[in-house]
Amino acid sequence: MTLPHGEVQTPCFMPVGTQGTVRALSPNDLRAAGASLVLANTYHLHVRPGEDVVGRLGGLHRFMGWDRPLLTDSGGFQVFSLEGSRTVSDDGVEFQSHVDGSRRFLTPERAVDIQWALGADVAMAFDHVVPGGADLTSARDALERTLKWLERCARRHRELSDGRTGGQAVNNGGADRPTAGPPDRQTLWPILQGGAHQALRLEALDRVLAIGSWTGLAVGGLSVGEPKAVMYETLEQLEPRLPPAVPRYLMGVGFPEDLVAAVARGVDLFDCVAPTRNGRNGAAYTADGPLNIRNAAHRDDPRPLDPTCDCETCTTFSRGYLRHLFAAEELLGLRLLSLHNVRYLIRLTAELRAAIQGGAGDYARWAAEWRRRYTQGETT
Amino acid sequence: MTLPHGEVQTPCFMPVGTQGTVRALSPNDLRAAGASLVLANTYHLHVRPGEDVVGRLGGLHRFMGWDRPLLTDSGGFQVFSLEGSRTVSDDGVEFQSHVDGSRRFLTPERAVDIQWALGADVAMAFDHVVPGGADLTSARDALERTLKWLERCARRHRELSDGRTGGQAVNNGGADRPTAGPPDRQTLWPILQGGAHQALRLEALDRVLAIGSWTGLAVGGLSVGEPKAVMYETLEQLEPRLPPAVPRYLMGVGFPEDLVAAVARGVDLFDCVAPTRNGRNGAAYTADGPLNIRNAAHRDDPRPLDPTCDCETCTTFSRGYLRHLFAAEELLGLRLLSLHNVRYLIRLTAELRAAIQGGAGDYARWAAEWRRRYTQGETT
Repeated sequence: MTLPHGEVQTPCFMPVGTQGTVRALSPNDLRAAGASLVLANTYHLHVRPGEDVVGRLGGLHRFMGWDRPLLTDSGGFQVFSLEGSRTVSDDGVEFQSHVDGSRRFLTPERAVDIQWALGADVAMAFDHVVPGGADLTSARDALERTLKWLERCARRHRELSDGRTGGQAVNNGGADRPTAGPPDRQTLWPILQGGAHQALRLEALDRVLAIGSWTGLAVGGLSVGEPKAVMYETLEQLEPRLPPAVPRYLMGVGFPEDLVAAVARGVDLFDCVAPTRNGRNGAAYTADGPLNIRNAAHRDDPRPLDPTCDCETCTTFSRGYLRHLFAAEELLGLRLLSLHNVRYLIRLTAELRAAIQGGAGDYARWAAEWRRRYTQGETT
Repeated sequence: MTLPHGEVQTPCFMPVGTQGTVRALSPNDLRAAGASLVLANTYHLHVRPGEDVVGRLGGLHRFMGWDRPLLTDSGGFQVFSLEGSRTVSDDGVEFQSHVDGSRRFLTPERAVDIQWALGADVAMAFDHVVPGGADLTSARDALERTLKWLERCARRHRELSDGRTGGQAVNNGGADRPTAGPPDRQTLWPILQGGAHQALRLEALDRVLAIGSWTGLAVGGLSVGEPKAVMYETLEQLEPRLPPAVPRYLMGVGFPEDLVAAVARGVDLFDCVAPTRNGRNGAAYTADGPLNIRNAAHRDDPRPLDPTCDCETCTTFSRGYLRHLFAAEELLGLRLLSLHNVRYLIRLTAELRAAIQGGAGDYARWAAEWRRRYTQGETT
C-alpha cells in the first residue's frame, strides 16, 4: 500500500504513539524496529497540545520526528470510553477533557478537520463505538449514527482535499488551500461497527461500501470485551465480502496469537498498545511464549530475551541485566522491553507475510507450528 | 590517558551510571554523545544485584553493554551518606542496605574485591568522607582513617593484580588467577580528603604520594555543602604540588560553570549526576544558559533546545515538542533531555581542551566570554 510518506507492506503492525510518541521509544528506535506506519491519537493530541500547536510546529510528522506514514484514529473510541463525562447527540459528542476538565465538542467534521491539521497520511472516520456486550438496540443505534457520521466525514474530507475550505483548525493565512496542512493525498478510511451482532456487521459493510469508494476499511468495536470467538466469526463473515484489493485494518488488536489468527481471516493491519504497555510491566514476547523479566529465574541468565531476535535489546543485553534494570526501577528497562516487543510483532508480521504466500493450507501448518512453540515454550 | 578498554582524552566528563546504567540512556546513546568513560557505583551494585551476579554475567562491561572504559567509585561516599544507619570503626563500616535493610560490612579490602569482581578499568580507594562543614577534629579523624584504608586498599589491589588471591568476590574456580575477573591492568586511584581545611588537604596530598605511585589522583569531599570558594582554594593550593603527568579527578562535580572554573585550576576528570537528574526535571544546558523546557514560553517554539548542539535531541526535535513530552509525562522526554545534557558537557570538555592549549591567558579570555554568554543568555 502506498501512502504519501512511503510504502507499507502488509500484514503490518502499527506501534501506537497515543500522544505523538510511542511510549519510551524514539523515531530512531522505531525505524530500527522496522516500523513503517505509526498510529497517533486525534483525541489526545486535540486536548494536548492541540492541533493548532502541532500545525504551527510543522504538522505531526515533523512534530514527532517521524518521516514515514502516520495514521490517526478519529477519537471516537477514546470519547466513548469517557463513561459519564460525555453526552452523545446526532450532531456529535460533548465531553470533558481528561487533561484540564474543559468541555469540548467533537463532531464528524471537527474530527476530520483535526486530522487534516495534524497531517496524517490516513485519517479515520469519527464513529460511535459500543462495548462488547451491547444489545441489538444500542448496537443498531450506534451503527446508524456511525453511518450518518461517515457521510459527514467523507463530505468534509472531500471539501478539504478539494481545497474548498482550509478547515477550522488549519491556519492557512486566508489562502484557499491550506498551506501548513497535509498533502491533499491524505486518505480517509471508514470504520465498520455493529457490535457482536453479525447481521449488523454485514449490513454495516454493505452500507459503508454504498457510501463511497475507500482506500482502506477498518473493523472497529472488536477486542472491547467480547469473547474471542465473536471476533473470529465477524472476520470470517466479512472476509469474502470485503473488496479484495483494499487493506483491512483490525483496530486495537493485538497480541501475537491474535495477529496469527486474524491474518488467516484476511486482516492486513493491526495496532495495539500491548507491546509497549506490557514491555513497561516487564512482559516480553518471545518465540517460546511470553516471559516476565521480573522473575527471579532470570537473575543470572546470560541469554538474550529471545535468541531468535535481532533487536538492540536482544543483541546487547542479557536477561540478567534486564531483570536488574526492572528490579532497580531503571528507565532503560522500560525502553528495552518496549523496543523488543515492537520488534517482535514487526518480525512476526514479516513471517506472516511469507507464510500467507503459500496459500491457506501452508499457512495453517505454519500457524499450528508457531502456536505449538509459542504456547508450549518456557513461560517463566 | 590509556585504560584497558580504551583511550580517554582530558578534560573528560564521566556520565554517572549509578546502578550499571546511566539513567534513561543506552550505551548507544552514550557513544553517540561521545562518552569515553562512564562511572558506576560500587555500593549500589554490591547491594543490587551483587558483584557475584555481575561477575557471572561476564563483568560490568558486558553486563551493561559498555565496551569503553569504566570507573567505579568505592562506595565510601554512599556509605557515609547513610546517616544513622551506619557504624564506622577503623576496620570498616557496617551499614544497612537501602534495598532490603540487610546489614552489610564494607572494609577497604572488600571495596577493592568488589571493584575487582566488577572489572572496572579504574577502581577507587575506600575513603571516609565528611560533610562540607566538618570541624578540624572530625576532618583530621576521617583523613587518618582514609590514609590507613588507602594502604590496605593498595595492598589488597596489589595482591589481586599479582594473582596472589582471586578475591573473596571473584569466582575463579579455584585457579590462582581470577578467570572471570578483570584484566590485571585495573588501576587503583587514591582519594584526597581533608574537608574544608587547607592544611589537611596539603598534608593528605603529601602522605598519599608517600604511600605509593599512582596513575590518577582524585579530590573527594568537595561539592558536599561547602562554599564554592573553598573548592576553588583547595584546587589552587593543590595544583602546583600535584604530579604533572597524573590525571586529576574532581569527584561529584559538576555544573558547566564548575567545569570551566576547575579546568583553569588543573582538573582533568569530572563526574556528576546533574545532567541526567536535571534533564529528567526538564532542565537543559544551552550555550545561552540553562532553560526549563516545562515553561509555557516553549509551547510553540520550533527551535531546538540549543542551536549550537549536534545531539539527536537538538537535530530532531523542537522545543515545542519537548515541552509537550514533559507536559504529557512521556518517557521519551526524560531521555531526550538527559541525552542533550550529557552531550552538552562532553562538547564543553572538548571546547575546554582546545581552550587550554592556548595557555592561561587565552583560557581566561575564552572562559570570560563563555561565562558572559552562559549567564546573560535567555533563561526561560
